[in-house]
Amino acid sequence: MFYHDDRLQYEVEVEEPDPVFGKLLQEAIGGVEGEMRVALQYLFQAWSVPDEYEQYREVLLDTAAEELGHIEILATAVKKNLRDAPASLDEDVETLAHMQPRQLLSGGMNPIAGDANGVPFSGSWVVASGNLASDMYANIMAESTGRLLATRLYHATDDPGMKDMLAYLVARDTMHQNQWISLLKTLGDPEEVFDVHPIPDSFPDEIENQEFNYAFMSTNVEPQENPDQAWTSGESIDGEGEYSYLNERDIDAPPMSVGKPSAEVFNDPAPRDED
Amino acid sequence: MFYHDDRLQYEVEVEEPDPVFGKLLQEAIGGVEGEMRVALQYLFQAWSVPDEYEQYREVLLDTAAEELGHIEILATAVKKNLRDAPASLDEDVETLAHMQPRQLLSGGMNPIAGDANGVPFSGSWVVASGNLASDMYANIMAESTGRLLATRLYHATDDPGMKDMLAYLVARDTMHQNQWISLLKTLGDPEEVFDVHPIPDSFPDEIENQEFNYAFMSTNVEPQENPDQAWTSGESIDGEGEYSYLNERDIDAPPMSVGKPSAEVFNDPAPRDED
Amino acid sequence: MFYHDDRLQYEVEVEEPDPVFGKLLQEAIGGVEGEMRVALQYLFQAWSVPDEYEQYREVLLDTAAEELGHIEILATAVKKNLRDAPASLDEDVETLAHMQPRQLLSGGMNPIAGDANGVPFSGSWVVASGNLASDMYANIMAESTGRLLATRLYHATDDPGMKDMLAYLVARDTMHQNQWISLLKTLGDPEEVFDVHPIPDSFPDEIENQEFNYAFMSTNVEPQENPDQAWTSGESIDGEGEYSYLNERDIDAPPMSVGKPSAEVFNDPAPRDED
Amino acid sequence: MFYHDDRLQYEVEVEEPDPVFGKLLQEAIGGVEGEMRVALQYLFQAWSVPDEYEQYREVLLDTAAEELGHIEILATAVKKNLRDAPASLDEDVETLAHMQPRQLLSGGMNPIAGDANGVPFSGSWVVASGNLASDMYANIMAESTGRLLATRLYHATDDPGMKDMLAYLVARDTMHQNQWISLLKTLGDPEEVFDVHPIPDSFPDEIENQEFNYAFMSTNVEPQENPDQAWTSGESIDGEGEYSYLNERDIDAPPMSVGKPSAEVFNDPAPRDED
Amino acid sequence: MFYHDDRLQYEVEVEEPDPVFGKLLQEAIGGVEGEMRVALQYLFQAWSVPDEYEQYREVLLDTAAEELGHIEILATAVKKNLRDAPASLDEDVETLAHMQPRQLLSGGMNPIAGDANGVPFSGSWVVASGNLASDMYANIMAESTGRLLATRLYHATDDPGMKDMLAYLVARDTMHQNQWISLLKTLGDPEEVFDVHPIPDSFPDEIENQEFNYAFMSTNVEPQENPDQAWTSGESIDGEGEYSYLNERDIDAPPMSVGKPSAEVFNDPAPRDED
Amino acid sequence: MFYHDDRLQYEVEVEEPDPVFGKLLQEAIGGVEGEMRVALQYLFQAWSVPDEYEQYREVLLDTAAEELGHIEILATAVKKNLRDAPASLDEDVETLAHMQPRQLLSGGMNPIAGDANGVPFSGSWVVASGNLASDMYANIMAESTGRLLATRLYHATDDPGMKDMLAYLVARDTMHQNQWISLLKTLGDPEEVFDVHPIPDSFPDEIENQEFNYAFMSTNVEPQENPDQAWTSGESIDGEGEYSYLNERDIDAPPMSVGKPSAEVFNDPAPRDED
Repeated sequence: MFYHDDRLQYEVEVEEPDPVFGKLLQEAIGGVEGEMRVALQYLFQAWSVPDEYEQYREVLLDTAAEELGHIEILATAVKKNLRDAPASLDEDVETLAHMQPRQLLSGGMNPIAGDANGVPFSGSWVVASGNLASDMYANIMAESTGRLLATRLYHATDDPGMKDMLAYLVARDTMHQNQWISLLKTLGDPEEVFDVHPIPDSFPDEIENQEFNYAFMSTNVEPQENPDQAWTSGESIDGEGEYSYLNERDIDAPPMSVGKPSAEVFNDPAPRDED
Repeated sequence: MFYHDDRLQYEVEVEEPDPVFGKLLQEAIGGVEGEMRVALQYLFQAWSVPDEYEQYREVLLDTAAEELGHIEILATAVKKNLRDAPASLDEDVETLAHMQPRQLLSGGMNPIAGDANGVPFSGSWVVASGNLASDMYANIMAESTGRLLATRLYHATDDPGMKDMLAYLVARDTMHQNQWISLLKTLGDPEEVFDVHPIPDSFPDEIENQEFNYAFMSTNVEPQENPDQAWTSGESIDGEGEYSYLNERDIDAPPMSVGKPSAEVFNDPAPRDED
Repeated sequence: MFYHDDRLQYEVEVEEPDPVFGKLLQEAIGGVEGEMRVALQYLFQAWSVPDEYEQYREVLLDTAAEELGHIEILATAVKKNLRDAPASLDEDVETLAHMQPRQLLSGGMNPIAGDANGVPFSGSWVVASGNLASDMYANIMAESTGRLLATRLYHATDDPGMKDMLAYLVARDTMHQNQWISLLKTLGDPEEVFDVHPIPDSFPDEIENQEFNYAFMSTNVEPQENPDQAWTSGESIDGEGEYSYLNERDIDAPPMSVGKPSAEVFNDPAPRDED
Repeated sequence: MFYHDDRLQYEVEVEEPDPVFGKLLQEAIGGVEGEMRVALQYLFQAWSVPDEYEQYREVLLDTAAEELGHIEILATAVKKNLRDAPASLDEDVETLAHMQPRQLLSGGMNPIAGDANGVPFSGSWVVASGNLASDMYANIMAESTGRLLATRLYHATDDPGMKDMLAYLVARDTMHQNQWISLLKTLGDPEEVFDVHPIPDSFPDEIENQEFNYAFMSTNVEPQENPDQAWTSGESIDGEGEYSYLNERDIDAPPMSVGKPSAEVFNDPAPRDED
Repeated sequence: MFYHDDRLQYEVEVEEPDPVFGKLLQEAIGGVEGEMRVALQYLFQAWSVPDEYEQYREVLLDTAAEELGHIEILATAVKKNLRDAPASLDEDVETLAHMQPRQLLSGGMNPIAGDANGVPFSGSWVVASGNLASDMYANIMAESTGRLLATRLYHATDDPGMKDMLAYLVARDTMHQNQWISLLKTLGDPEEVFDVHPIPDSFPDEIENQEFNYAFMSTNVEPQENPDQAWTSGESIDGEGEYSYLNERDIDAPPMSVGKPSAEVFNDPAPRDED
Repeated sequence: MFYHDDRLQYEVEVEEPDPVFGKLLQEAIGGVEGEMRVALQYLFQAWSVPDEYEQYREVLLDTAAEELGHIEILATAVKKNLRDAPASLDEDVETLAHMQPRQLLSGGMNPIAGDANGVPFSGSWVVASGNLASDMYANIMAESTGRLLATRLYHATDDPGMKDMLAYLVARDTMHQNQWISLLKTLGDPEEVFDVHPIPDSFPDEIENQEFNYAFMSTNVEPQENPDQAWTSGESIDGEGEYSYLNERDIDAPPMSVGKPSAEVFNDPAPRDED
């Protein structure tokens, strides 16, 4: 279960409040690359971990609670960027026009649970697949797009307080990328980097269609030669196959066929005879 | 630009049509783990690739067009599983109650652009970050959750035609996991696996808050000792730092403070004096 | 402005309540083919009609208010189909499992503002383009998919009360398809059926790229001959051009090129030199 | 900031796992009446509280962290209800057809961040208005619909463990309804129950249109007499006016008029002369 | 059923059209605090009212039809604010950049069925719980956030016509807050204000977990003393209990445990032996 | 199945990059009127066509693949309009404030899979009804609103490259409107334009309620005379009936009635006796 105190995980200062930056910060709160997503994702993953892997449950809960504190930091930053923002078109039409409308109209100069466009946070972004290896890739991806976002926000502002806060969040994303990769390696043979692949690796290999599981398929309309890329020849990255190369046009593909229309759902497009 | 022919990339046979399986297959068409997502994701990533990396644009377009063919395969499979499905409660209340309502009511026994619950496909799932390393993790993750889905569908059915089709799709997901990792490695030093980290690696390291970029943060309410996990001590996985361990309660955290309420947006909760 | 009375536009009787049919009826309330969509669509279109076309505003308001009454009819039908439905798994696990969960859990055996899958009604389905000709096609389409839905629901039930109610709704959809086409014809020369095309017809014809505005484009990967279909040769249906036929592969298409990556948004996927 | 431990706030036992109940429980996790909504709502409200009201920030954080623990309880309950659930149609087509498809296919027998229909949780449900009085009504409403949901779930199951868990959650909703009303009273004169109305009470009364601020408007198509209800005559509940009664048809309403169509956005529905 | 006439419920004049205000007004049309929500909410609640409470159905229909007229008023106001707005960047890039893109591009200078950000109206916002007491809180909440929005819009504009229109809408929200509270009181003993609590009050009290139904739970990480707030000691607001105070860390909470992973859904993260 | 090459279907040049126009172009990519919708709609319709109508499947696939190329064209146009756009508020606060935030923050100056407001593309917009006549109206409507959008974008820009590209897209929409109408005519008697109505025409006419299937219903609160419009008298447009005119208030409408509340879902709003 969960606890709080009345402290912020990191200091949030804004020297020159800027409502436009307050709008952009929303992406890091409620956007697909944001902190609500990772906080909830790590919670749902933690709750899916079976007892025998409880050390992974612990680390997921650790970082989930940390990320809740990041939403809090960013919410504080939004609020401070909206300090003295105009609430009337008469006062400053330009600035008000640039603001995130719902921060003003719905929140009264406070953050909302959505992205920079005001698109609401969606639970569909929370990935908890039941398979820890798969979850780790979801986490590395989330921390990669999240760090990319944080660096772009860092670049977008000149406010020293905001830059300091973002340098903290960028650092945490660095750590989290690292920790999820390190954790991923412990799931298989720690010495073989991609030992856990193909994910899920518990599905019996022999069931896969062996003609296609290590063949790169070119769909270029013109026949292509094998370009000898890292993914078209040589041993496969998971160490379980050999890459090959084929052209889609050459495969033995059957004609599409789906059968007859369904009369009882009124699919027949032609008019009835008696008309 | 794009072309088509009237062939299916792989044969689709259904011996015993089953509308429940037709419902489950929707997840692989329009779900967050499905083929619409990867097809569109690879397209948007391809269109974001700058000219100097055009060999990556080509491979993304190759696999995007392949994935469009996978949606087609699955759409055919849905249609064939709905062959002879009941359209009237009088006919078979049980089976009709188990069906995906919109496959019957909206599509006339055809697939929809949504998941197994009929939740519409969302463009918010399409990740194209502008940074190829970040995109590759989105792709490995998509192919990992996608292969997991395909293996669960394989396990769920006993129809030999469906099992054969899914063994093909599982094989392609194996290949795609492999190819995106192989491609990822070529972005940095191919001999150093995680050379591209932290993503984006073009952000100057020295800006990051150096106190926190390789420190695991425990948020357990009880003070914890460093458990000496792969992610709490030793060299960091990106080779650029040394892991350490800290307790959230010990950090020097400031009290939360956000200032005064905004009067002109009518935030004051107290009644007015004259009332 | 709007008024109500306490009457139903048409009688709603249910002899044999059926919660599965109560679930299917949701599609006609809050689905993309349903009555909420047309009611709101006609309202927003009416509110967009300029004063000089106020006779069209009137007819749109007329049918909008009628459609509000259809939602009411269907809401009543849902409620009556849920009469005596089980509220406990102990009572009847089978039937409860077949029910729309939110009709029970959120509504207490009442309809919700969503479709048969419980997907919420979306304002994005409300088409009011500002151009009446375009709006009329949105309306014909809505009444076509709506009537298709109503006929499928008619076929799905054997309850005489439900069949009687649906025969009324099907009839109204027949009228509405007819009225919107008749109205569409009055926008141009009533004797020339497709005089209003291409929509919007007020855009100067000569601006269009004249090489492509009446040419059918085959994207088949194999070169095709003109199949002499109604849309590949002869006078165009809007009477303003002559159909021709071309193969996509033959057009003079330039190579794709987008320029260099943006460094300041950290798109460079390669690691930094100093790493 | 936030902390966790590895305990559950309340014991979760399931004697007879039931995947249908596991599906229904999703509504209490990620539905509009569920725990994700209240947890996030109280967090966003807390972060919007100005420093001078920090005791309210504290109580909001207190209950937010408690609600996070409720999601955890329910996630555990879902998982335990899916124990031994069928993963293959061959095993038990009936039960599998009744399951929430994404709990199986996306989560591997784990909860998702959505409602009983699999509709994703939406950030648009998180109400944090910047005005504490308004927020309190959002909270009472959330706890009322939430308790209603919990009682319906209690009624739906016969499993003693589930009944025990729900009796706990119902009790907490009772407390939370009470606490938010008690808090609401402290915002104004604690002796005058509705002293904080009309919300926001800081908007100057005299600006309101005085003809309409305490008049009930009947929109019945037939003229109605004042029915002398609690809301049509007597002192208004906020103590600031006197109820009256009027018929919409009698008000002095102007004709609708919006002016001319906009030519430059191609709204003119009529064809161009030269056609 | 429903009727209309060609009058506006209240006059709408705009002296100085302002497309930015036209964008902000969208929040009051299709936002979560807007008129589409209340109109549809009161309709769905009315349709859920059982016959024995038909006087409540009448008042809900009365106000629903009134609210439909409010959408119409606001739609007219949007249209008038877009009078002479630029449709070309060449004409006025600044103003066009500030506009709601879909009012121009999708609507041709007309309102859309979405909020100020263009986020579509969602049926998930329509609360009709089947329990009138619960519904009334949803209504008071909707009218509180709605009135807050209207006062913020009033403050944002200087146009006398817009101020006059909003003074009308603010007045109606005052009335509606009052009427729903007055109605709520008639559901129980009209002399006891919170007699209807806890909602739903028809759930037998004795079932609730008696240890927790009037206990405030502090989740502060540091043990707290009872602060003797209105919600931590004294008689509960519903008159059915006595408030107490407890610390989450002190409760007798069990360790989290969920059992083993499910092999047949391929949750095992470890690679297979034979690899 | 599908193929690609590395060419653009039409040249895309931008002389004066304009990030505001880059934002507006998103509507044509991922908006409800945009190219993602038609591309996917034609695909899903093609996959629903039964074998006996395979010539229609071919034309749907032809145009679907063409539309994929249109998304590509527009994606390129977005990218080129974002060339040299500011990434820092310090650089140009004005322009950055006008940009689509996610093109910068999520895409790194690349297009997203959403509309001009950043609202994600929704699969609910993809209409594939199983009935080709109904589908054709969805297509004419999509090409009408799509062409309207393209003409508005053409008017909005002064860049010669953008005008040239849009003149191409407008031309293609002209062709597509024409081709779908021409195709629609071939479904019935090619000489009788509306022979396929009412859609679906395979539903037996005699089942419809004959009193209401060609009667225009006025819902004006004041009794109206038949205005002798094209849709209120004369032969119906489908040639199967005679228009008439009726007033809603005159129809023989029954009182609304829904029965008793459901006790076991705790709908009774009144407090329990013992309280």
